[in-house]
Amino acid sequence: MTAPLLTEIDHVAIAVNDLDDAVAYYHDTFGCTVEHREVVESDGVEEVLLKVADSYVQLLMPIRDDSPVAKYLANKGEGLHHVGYRVDDCAVALASVKEHGHRVIDEAPRPGSRGTTVAFVHPKTAFGTLIELVQE
Amino acid sequence: MTAPLLTEIDHVAIAVNDLDDAVAYYHDTFGCTVEHREVVESDGVEEVLLKVADSYVQLLMPIRDDSPVAKYLANKGEGLHHVGYRVDDCAVALASVKEHGHRVIDEAPRPGSRGTTVAFVHPKTAFGTLIELVQE
Repeated sequence: MTAPLLTEIDHVAIAVNDLDDAVAYYHDTFGCTVEHREVVESDGVEEVLLKVADSYVQLLMPIRDDSPVAKYLANKGEGLHHVGYRVDDCAVALASVKEHGHRVIDEAPRPGSRGTTVAFVHPKTAFGTLIELVQE
Repeated sequence: MTAPLLTEIDHVAIAVNDLDDAVAYYHDTFGCTVEHREVVESDGVEEVLLKVADSYVQLLMPIRDDSPVAKYLANKGEGLHHVGYRVDDCAVALASVKEHGHRVIDEAPRPGSRGTTVAFVHPKTAFGTLIELVQE
């Protein structure tokens, strides 16, 4: 492999019960401001992005009971949900995961929030970590 | 507040059972290379830092059964353990957490790995997220 496929920590995603409460926490305590807010219907979440240098803190709140984040909150409570890594080419990075025999959640890249192209890697073969590959 | 206290995602920390296996995963799949490796006796862990832009993926393996990471692995299994944010002044950031009525784990900044000064914020009042404040 000639160059690392991961070019930046795109975001750390945190599942929360109340988006406004979490925004207030990060704003009041650490001075973080909201860069972006979007309802992502396909994932059943509303997300807020707080900018930290070239990365984001992504706060996720479910908008319906059958969303994966709602299930996560019901089972595990609030907390770190996944980590998103920025990649130049989502399809190339996803192919590398499969070629090395590891499981994926998304078989092909799909649209993410704020116009990105994304794919999720399964935590089962990634040391328990849900990984999102994010192409801007 | 005039400027954000969090200047960078310093690292995402992942608790793993076998450090070499995890290093191999990130190297073979994503081309990540080891930037730093250190036994942190005070925390009861051996850590590896994989560099991603100006941030790190921090892989943590316990070196004794009574380390917090060993307990985490026993209770929850492998996965995302905490997120570290870089700050200019750890004492100032920690003071802000306390001033806003939130709980901390470290009452005062203390030495971290690779010569840093760090303090942990309690997840109880931080939306379930164990936060580390890292001053380089």
